[in-house]
Amino acid sequence: MAKSRFEYVRTYEQDGMLLPNTYIVIRLDGRGFHRFADRYHFGKPNDKRALCLMNAAAKQVMGQIPDIAGAYGQSDEYSFVLRRECRLFDRREAKLVSTFASTFTAHYQFLWPQYFPQRVLDGNMLPTFDARAVLYPSLREVRDYFSWRQADCHINNLYNTAFWTLVLTGDLSQHDAEQALMGTNSGDKNELLFGRFGINYNNEDAMFRKGTMLVRDVGSSSESAESRDEPEPEPEPEQHEKSKRQVEREEKKRRKAEIVEMHVDIIGDEFWKNSARWIS
Amino acid sequence: MAKSRFEYVRTYEQDGMLLPNTYIVIRLDGRGFHRFADRYHFGKPNDKRALCLMNAAAKQVMGQIPDIAGAYGQSDEYSFVLRRECRLFDRREAKLVSTFASTFTAHYQFLWPQYFPQRVLDGNMLPTFDARAVLYPSLREVRDYFSWRQADCHINNLYNTAFWTLVLTGDLSQHDAEQALMGTNSGDKNELLFGRFGINYNNEDAMFRKGTMLVRDVGSSSESAESRDEPEPEPEPEQHEKSKRQVEREEKKRRKAEIVEMHVDIIGDEFWKNSARWIS
Amino acid sequence: MAKSRFEYVRTYEQDGMLLPNTYIVIRLDGRGFHRFADRYHFGKPNDKRALCLMNAAAKQVMGQIPDIAGAYGQSDEYSFVLRRECRLFDRREAKLVSTFASTFTAHYQFLWPQYFPQRVLDGNMLPTFDARAVLYPSLREVRDYFSWRQADCHINNLYNTAFWTLVLTGDLSQHDAEQALMGTNSGDKNELLFGRFGINYNNEDAMFRKGTMLVRDVGSSSESAESRDEPEPEPEPEQHEKSKRQVEREEKKRRKAEIVEMHVDIIGDEFWKNSARWIS
Amino acid sequence: MAKSRFEYVRTYEQDGMLLPNTYIVIRLDGRGFHRFADRYHFGKPNDKRALCLMNAAAKQVMGQIPDIAGAYGQSDEYSFVLRRECRLFDRREAKLVSTFASTFTAHYQFLWPQYFPQRVLDGNMLPTFDARAVLYPSLREVRDYFSWRQADCHINNLYNTAFWTLVLTGDLSQHDAEQALMGTNSGDKNELLFGRFGINYNNEDAMFRKGTMLVRDVGSSSESAESRDEPEPEPEPEQHEKSKRQVEREEKKRRKAEIVEMHVDIIGDEFWKNSARWIS
Repeated sequence: MAKSRFEYVRTYEQDGMLLPNTYIVIRLDGRGFHRFADRYHFGKPNDKRALCLMNAAAKQVMGQIPDIAGAYGQSDEYSFVLRRECRLFDRREAKLVSTFASTFTAHYQFLWPQYFPQRVLDGNMLPTFDARAVLYPSLREVRDYFSWRQADCHINNLYNTAFWTLVLTGDLSQHDAEQALMGTNSGDKNELLFGRFGINYNNEDAMFRKGTMLVRDVGSSSESAESRDEPEPEPEPEQHEKSKRQVEREEKKRRKAEIVEMHVDIIGDEFWKNSARWIS
Repeated sequence: MAKSRFEYVRTYEQDGMLLPNTYIVIRLDGRGFHRFADRYHFGKPNDKRALCLMNAAAKQVMGQIPDIAGAYGQSDEYSFVLRRECRLFDRREAKLVSTFASTFTAHYQFLWPQYFPQRVLDGNMLPTFDARAVLYPSLREVRDYFSWRQADCHINNLYNTAFWTLVLTGDLSQHDAEQALMGTNSGDKNELLFGRFGINYNNEDAMFRKGTMLVRDVGSSSESAESRDEPEPEPEPEQHEKSKRQVEREEKKRRKAEIVEMHVDIIGDEFWKNSARWIS
Repeated sequence: MAKSRFEYVRTYEQDGMLLPNTYIVIRLDGRGFHRFADRYHFGKPNDKRALCLMNAAAKQVMGQIPDIAGAYGQSDEYSFVLRRECRLFDRREAKLVSTFASTFTAHYQFLWPQYFPQRVLDGNMLPTFDARAVLYPSLREVRDYFSWRQADCHINNLYNTAFWTLVLTGDLSQHDAEQALMGTNSGDKNELLFGRFGINYNNEDAMFRKGTMLVRDVGSSSESAESRDEPEPEPEPEQHEKSKRQVEREEKKRRKAEIVEMHVDIIGDEFWKNSARWIS
Repeated sequence: MAKSRFEYVRTYEQDGMLLPNTYIVIRLDGRGFHRFADRYHFGKPNDKRALCLMNAAAKQVMGQIPDIAGAYGQSDEYSFVLRRECRLFDRREAKLVSTFASTFTAHYQFLWPQYFPQRVLDGNMLPTFDARAVLYPSLREVRDYFSWRQADCHINNLYNTAFWTLVLTGDLSQHDAEQALMGTNSGDKNELLFGRFGINYNNEDAMFRKGTMLVRDVGSSSESAESRDEPEPEPEPEQHEKSKRQVEREEKKRRKAEIVEMHVDIIGDEFWKNSARWIS
């Protein structure tokens, strides 16, 4: 019959399965958010409402997808890490990245009026996001991934703070501010802020300086809570251990777990001491 | 410095480039639209406003991405075909599917109040879409792909029309309607609709029966317009022919081209006679 | 100049990089070895020279590629596991599998006359091998992979031993031997061998029953040798720890390390107690 | 039972299917052939026996794999193009590249004594090859691929001819020869050869200058033989047209077809006029 004559086109699809038993990190990036921020008059160097909206949308995504263990956001980007056992959508890459992009986009737009009640969205410039997936075989790499993003946050925010202080308070043109900062290191920028403007960068809003970490606090699992000093045992592939019932019980626990928001250093060891509570 | 110590995590990214000089078809599917349709009381077997909203969102996507040559939608799905020369996002799969899913989602939600003014969206059930990409090396396969989707539309819509007529007009329970249709072929269903309910299926709304085809009418390109009887020449890889200026001129032409909406048979030859106007 | 006009064709190549910091298992399979074994009159159910030739070729491959930590062979197949830090050929899949297949093929043919001095190879039936690569993120999966292959060896060899004993000693036709074994489990086959033919399967050559494990004995590394009871720490990604010099020193150590051949159980814990000596 | 407990490790395998209805080009490269050529005293700048051995091995590969339409070799590399309809090994990349590498390696070693009867192979330096696969959606790209390889052959061979003439006939050191050629173009090298040594490069062996093209001459298929001026019609995906019987008949025809060896220009149009005889 008619259907089958054409159905061969399905054989051209690739399955695109992501390797099992690895952490999946999905990073969303705002598309054209430079122009978007201008269009909706975001504050400089940071717009707190815009960041809170990002966080709120990310929490909605976490609420709907229990396999997300944690997330980190800064500027117009958000990274989600999925448990290494995650089997969502049979780990098909296209399905994962498109669903994350779509779900985040939906909530961002839906929540917009709560954060920007005076700024009606324009159909010619709606907020949209792209997404990519990266695999990490060990917790060490996941930690380094988040450290990478926070280091990026720090560098950009320190620069932007100095730049916009020079422009907005110091009355420099954008071109002159750029020149003034060329070749400066972190210390120089801190000094410039303090010496010329009396601004102690460390007193700036922690959300701006550190970004936002969201973790799903599943609670202290019996054996793993305290002993975070020793090396973490290599996680076992799921097939070896869990009954279907146990899997469901754990998912239910994750669904009910609180999502905790933090604006702290995630590069040092301190933050990761309790990582077993949320990522394993 | 701090940044570089962590930056190795980038080396774990795969580029995921889609093979050059092939057609890219991106299909979006509504996520959980069965429940979504119930929640917002979509009409049965078809809700015209919901389909028109799908079409409107698809047109917005086409308006923003000139590399889309055409699109076909039915039910809660939409398929977009990109020109084989398309270099959007360096043809990276994750970026393509996530951007399409995000952009479609944004417009669907934004346009919702125009199509469903009485039904305010609920933050716990927002419309979201996943996406996948499939490659086709020749126009023949692209045509067969669209034929496959239209054959699917026909089969499902005929069934749904018969089913809901039995339930809504014939007062059967859903279970009895299912039983009544079991094992029937297309002819049987046509006859049932006409014999018992006086409904000539062919008079049903063409949008329901045929779905919606959108093409970007670039206009009759000089050499290719008339001679559509002969086999199409194998398209040349782009490197061989076009200057950067020509590429820009063509993109501009596509941006300005009208997007034409049709509810016609796309399985037979007739529709494809003029395909050079929009797909090449 | 002439060259560059065509060079765009290189852009169609995919890099095919295998995820870093995961174990790569490469399995070679003899192509058409059923017919090959007939053509060269291999003994039934096992031909010891043929197995020894496989082992000898595998050792040559291990001798040339220090990143191979160990290998397991049975019948006409051989699996090699590469260290998770391995960067050979930038971890490009096609380069890895083709090089392994080619190198094994070269040594198998070269060594043939030593093992089959009377049987000159026929150019119309040369021994060839295909190869595939699979990634495993943790040692647990590598262990289970090898267990899977040894379980396969056990099942096939017990069957073949029973089958060929029935045929060669019991004078059954191949068809009748097949019928006699249909539906029997391991216990039945052991009993049949012992009851009817006085053969204690456990006294058969261990190479036939267990296959061959090859490990590169790098020697007891200071910290890891004794304490194999505790869970293995999750290996760190290489970037974090090793200087170039250390990497070179370790490779040199592996090059000089002895390759040890074993015909032992690799499913139980015993074999893996010392795995840190060769795989980490 | 024992087997199934471990069998989950199979789910980590990726299928790696190459896109249907595209040309597959598989290129083999000699591994470490610089040292290999030194070890076995290959003549400079070309060793005719070595090239003939490459060609002989390539013909054996073509003889065994009827899906190969043609092949081009130069120096220590050989490229095979498979018909776009080819379904060998379900188009799995790893299986294809490993099988090609293994089969070529086997024949190269087997034929070695015919071409180098005095030079016994040394087990510590056996000839091995790696392989990669690239996809091309249209014949134009396949043609440009082969042109790319022949342009490469021309450039390298002209350089090597000039270099070794300066060294072997002109008595320059290798370092001085290198200096003498630095910055010269093709015309300069031709002139140097002719002016100083009376050598007309165009009279050099065509196999050295042009490399070797092998085509499987399936014979003039009815409709396609003469009219090679018009653009080639876009090949149809196989599902549309051929019965299983027709497929088998065609394969048989290819198996019996003669493999023709040529040393001609494959960049210009002339060679491709009759390409329908062998590639479609």
